[in-house]
Amino acid sequence: MKNYAVAVIGTGRIGKVHIETLQRLRQVHLKGVSDPYVDPVWAKQLGIEQIETDHMALLTNPEIDAVFICSPSSFHAQQIVEAARAGKHIFCEKPIALEPDVIRNCLAEVEKHGVKLQIGFNRRFDPNFRRVRDVVASGQIGVPHLLQITSRDPSPPTLDYVKNSGGLFLDMTIHDFDMARFLIGSEVTEVYATGSALINPEIQRYQDVDTAVITLTFENGTIGVINNSRQAVYGYDQRVEVLGPKGNIAAENKTPTQTILSTQTGVIHDNPLNFFLERYQEAYLAEAEAFFEYLETGGPSPASGKDGLKPVLIGLAAGQSLRENRPVSISY
Amino acid sequence: MKNYAVAVIGTGRIGKVHIETLQRLRQVHLKGVSDPYVDPVWAKQLGIEQIETDHMALLTNPEIDAVFICSPSSFHAQQIVEAARAGKHIFCEKPIALEPDVIRNCLAEVEKHGVKLQIGFNRRFDPNFRRVRDVVASGQIGVPHLLQITSRDPSPPTLDYVKNSGGLFLDMTIHDFDMARFLIGSEVTEVYATGSALINPEIQRYQDVDTAVITLTFENGTIGVINNSRQAVYGYDQRVEVLGPKGNIAAENKTPTQTILSTQTGVIHDNPLNFFLERYQEAYLAEAEAFFEYLETGGPSPASGKDGLKPVLIGLAAGQSLRENRPVSISY
Amino acid sequence: MKNYAVAVIGTGRIGKVHIETLQRLRQVHLKGVSDPYVDPVWAKQLGIEQIETDHMALLTNPEIDAVFICSPSSFHAQQIVEAARAGKHIFCEKPIALEPDVIRNCLAEVEKHGVKLQIGFNRRFDPNFRRVRDVVASGQIGVPHLLQITSRDPSPPTLDYVKNSGGLFLDMTIHDFDMARFLIGSEVTEVYATGSALINPEIQRYQDVDTAVITLTFENGTIGVINNSRQAVYGYDQRVEVLGPKGNIAAENKTPTQTILSTQTGVIHDNPLNFFLERYQEAYLAEAEAFFEYLETGGPSPASGKDGLKPVLIGLAAGQSLRENRPVSISY
Amino acid sequence: MKNYAVAVIGTGRIGKVHIETLQRLRQVHLKGVSDPYVDPVWAKQLGIEQIETDHMALLTNPEIDAVFICSPSSFHAQQIVEAARAGKHIFCEKPIALEPDVIRNCLAEVEKHGVKLQIGFNRRFDPNFRRVRDVVASGQIGVPHLLQITSRDPSPPTLDYVKNSGGLFLDMTIHDFDMARFLIGSEVTEVYATGSALINPEIQRYQDVDTAVITLTFENGTIGVINNSRQAVYGYDQRVEVLGPKGNIAAENKTPTQTILSTQTGVIHDNPLNFFLERYQEAYLAEAEAFFEYLETGGPSPASGKDGLKPVLIGLAAGQSLRENRPVSISY
Repeated sequence: MKNYAVAVIGTGRIGKVHIETLQRLRQVHLKGVSDPYVDPVWAKQLGIEQIETDHMALLTNPEIDAVFICSPSSFHAQQIVEAARAGKHIFCEKPIALEPDVIRNCLAEVEKHGVKLQIGFNRRFDPNFRRVRDVVASGQIGVPHLLQITSRDPSPPTLDYVKNSGGLFLDMTIHDFDMARFLIGSEVTEVYATGSALINPEIQRYQDVDTAVITLTFENGTIGVINNSRQAVYGYDQRVEVLGPKGNIAAENKTPTQTILSTQTGVIHDNPLNFFLERYQEAYLAEAEAFFEYLETGGPSPASGKDGLKPVLIGLAAGQSLRENRPVSISY
Repeated sequence: MKNYAVAVIGTGRIGKVHIETLQRLRQVHLKGVSDPYVDPVWAKQLGIEQIETDHMALLTNPEIDAVFICSPSSFHAQQIVEAARAGKHIFCEKPIALEPDVIRNCLAEVEKHGVKLQIGFNRRFDPNFRRVRDVVASGQIGVPHLLQITSRDPSPPTLDYVKNSGGLFLDMTIHDFDMARFLIGSEVTEVYATGSALINPEIQRYQDVDTAVITLTFENGTIGVINNSRQAVYGYDQRVEVLGPKGNIAAENKTPTQTILSTQTGVIHDNPLNFFLERYQEAYLAEAEAFFEYLETGGPSPASGKDGLKPVLIGLAAGQSLRENRPVSISY
Repeated sequence: MKNYAVAVIGTGRIGKVHIETLQRLRQVHLKGVSDPYVDPVWAKQLGIEQIETDHMALLTNPEIDAVFICSPSSFHAQQIVEAARAGKHIFCEKPIALEPDVIRNCLAEVEKHGVKLQIGFNRRFDPNFRRVRDVVASGQIGVPHLLQITSRDPSPPTLDYVKNSGGLFLDMTIHDFDMARFLIGSEVTEVYATGSALINPEIQRYQDVDTAVITLTFENGTIGVINNSRQAVYGYDQRVEVLGPKGNIAAENKTPTQTILSTQTGVIHDNPLNFFLERYQEAYLAEAEAFFEYLETGGPSPASGKDGLKPVLIGLAAGQSLRENRPVSISY
Repeated sequence: MKNYAVAVIGTGRIGKVHIETLQRLRQVHLKGVSDPYVDPVWAKQLGIEQIETDHMALLTNPEIDAVFICSPSSFHAQQIVEAARAGKHIFCEKPIALEPDVIRNCLAEVEKHGVKLQIGFNRRFDPNFRRVRDVVASGQIGVPHLLQITSRDPSPPTLDYVKNSGGLFLDMTIHDFDMARFLIGSEVTEVYATGSALINPEIQRYQDVDTAVITLTFENGTIGVINNSRQAVYGYDQRVEVLGPKGNIAAENKTPTQTILSTQTGVIHDNPLNFFLERYQEAYLAEAEAFFEYLETGGPSPASGKDGLKPVLIGLAAGQSLRENRPVSISY
């Protein structure tokens, strides 16, 4: 594999995750970072050469092959366009944007400039979900009949976060919509969503919900259902299950250890890993490896621009379904 | 506990289950059975004194305290009325009838004659589901946010059976509707059902489905979801899960043994018990015990006439929801 | 199957278990019971015709086909001899006796009078252990290399009980010695035992231990190891595991339910069933069924007189090993 | 934490594991490697400055703070002495040597030169075993009564390897002896070993066994038992269990995923991770981190020279026990 010079735009929480991952990849040279609030001492310690407050300075550096866009979501679309115009390959955190037309314009630019694009749907690279997808794709259980996704956060975000999040379906369920498409390998044609503010009634102020059940109909006939909660006090609960005519394949939660404490009060197993960074640690590494393999060997993107657009369309339809209390069709 | 003389109406499969159970109860004297096709040799061997082809002969026997109605469903309502008029306490298999008004008239007769009535929702007496209900009712996990029921048969019924079954929702999901009410302790106010004939397309001829997802809204705010399949090749799959603000309580499947075979090809656990009679063996015994305790001590019926009516109302609403592809409200 | 008239000698705890079981068997007529302290009111309520304080009155009743000997252990050998002489088939609780020669004389009488004998090694009829045995016997995992038995009581017996128990190896481990022979299908040729009084040091007064590890060498080369404790506060812990060249077959504990409670403090499964009567409820029924099938069809006893003798020989060798701190050979 | 310049002696399989791990540690500068057969191209690509065929060239470099000794076992003792004399801190793979006096002399040199020493008992740093140790050390389950270690390799080594391995107890069980001391926090005073060549009878030629059960007596009264097999076809089987008066703490195997495939033939979970490098990947990282924390903060070594000596003494006693078929006392 050839070597790639890479820059990271945005050095917040998720930017740091990618920076750490990139440093573990032998064929990658992490050359630059940018952030309006970048800490140059920290960056220098990591051996990073080009440290900028403005990402344009990275994009104009001809030595940089690819960028990781880890800035706040509202900047993603614009920065994708800028990177595409600069001829850089792009890894961009989800979502590209919350408005379909903005996404479509953005993807047109990517196509026009012939750069490669991968969206940060990290869960696709989790060994558990990948195994479920592989079993389904292999035909071992036949064409799926039922898909179930249980996706629950350990604790709800702040009201401030909720206010600007785009709502549960575009902020949290968007990952599950992507997972649904990834596992079943078919498009969602209709969605019915029901939800409520059961954990914190105050989020109703923002027309949002914190508990929801979303029914999906797929082109290939599969019926799917997602249940979401912003608060599973026992940990980050991330399970999927696919039933087909020949069997059922399920992925259970990951735990810190496999220890079992038996006392008079019960037989106690570990709680699921509590935080997405722990739960998806292996996935972030595999995701970055997949990006560079994609740059190297071509072929379809492991998580393409279209893969970035479609969950947004499903999420918007889910929002409409919730408001109007009726199933909503989706056209792509 | 006093002794009860009991007669069983209908000696088909489920009648035989109850006969076997009744013979294990010390305070019960199984005095009579009736069935148009009764096998008198078999019945005599069991030590049963009164063997009839017409159930009315049992109802007019003044020595009989209570009857178990195990005839085909279409006879239930009429026989309940007859038994009530004869002053017999009644255990009746589900469903009472498929038409709400028939059920209501039937319950009015039961009330008028002051006899006791318990409907055969056997799953309420399963130790697993009972524990889930107890944990929920105790407040340990708080007021429920989410209910999930996975209810799948090992293999689909014949087309002949389907034709007269009343459809998936009234034949199979009706148990899950009862379970939903039992676990959450609140009424279902709205239902949205989606379903498809994925296992055997021919059942579409009877306007029926074999795979379904049904979303329930409860009076107390809980959101519920049931997934049904007529064919889980790995066994009878009967799981429930309730999430509340303080935790999650789940019931997994029962297996014939707790053995684990580890070979090069995997770590193999037992399939779930494959048949409802095995799965709910303990439940049938506990159900009968509960009936005689109810006769003895009074109090509310462990599965009352209203409990028999409401799942039918939910099932009918689910059918309407499926046909019209929209959520349907339920009024009681 | 023909009908058998049966009498039960001894109506203490284990006698009552068998009485309840016998009443569930269709081909069995429980005709008589005897006990110096028998409660005639209770026995009459069960419909038992012949109620005696002296078991000889049962043995001289020509209508009785078989007896269940459930008296205190010290009476077993004598009563087996008496029953054999009376021409009755015999089910006898373990142990026959604690002295090999007494057992041998007893078995000679049984043979002489041509009656059938089954010893109450109930665990052989537990669905879990039976499955392990069947997997081993089928050759699926090959000739066993390693056997592990974990056998722990929920709480220690009283000192009074310990005093007359014959010691841990003859009182508790004897079941595990039988299980070892049953699972491996080969004889134990050498035993090394180590043990200590860790739960209650006072039992040292009776030269007994409450915690032990016993290594077994089998004729076929398998190496076995048993670990015993008189106190597993989390419940009755009964697990076995057999490793062979082609795999490992293990039996885990049985629990009252399959529910899982997930809270902030952990993911809590049920404790194992706490008491041997609950744990082996199915086994007692299967054991009695096997006895009557054996009467009916002949063939080898499901738990023969020799099967009753050999664990005593292993237990005595284990006791010697513990006292002399060296491995002890066993000859049969 | 200060920065450490480190060199690795030996670039075989385990050397490469440590090299990869060291490169992930921010405070570590991997400055040099040595190996008679070192691949300089590979080493240069890793950015390593000093590449030697003779480790003495590393030991004389004053810039190097610490060495990782990853050479064949027969060189360990001599290289520890050389490194100690050169004033380097030492991480050394197990075993130090197979002769107690060689180890003792070696440790005396380490002490004389005041360098720090950590032995590569990587399993101490596995999150599962660490949790078991922590639960035991916390007193949650009380003073241990019983320890069980199941330790089985996926497949046997070659005869060539066996010939020079020092035998099962010094090659494989040595890890379990260390684990036993680590978990119980008390010394082993007596050992009884039984074993056999059941997988490959040819290893008898080298007086070795491939299947064994080893009973341990601890100073604090705990009774321990280890079962070993060179061949668990279902994967690398590494489980431990500690019973105390207040409960039982167990560590089960780690699996690649938490997926479950349910088909007509069973409910199939993943095999355990198949290879020690996968199973203990996290442990190797934690082990290296612990080494540098130990350099930084002092205190007792996480796996001291004495910890390296004692399992050898237990292993030698186990060998003697097997040969003489009697329990053997150990004095330290």
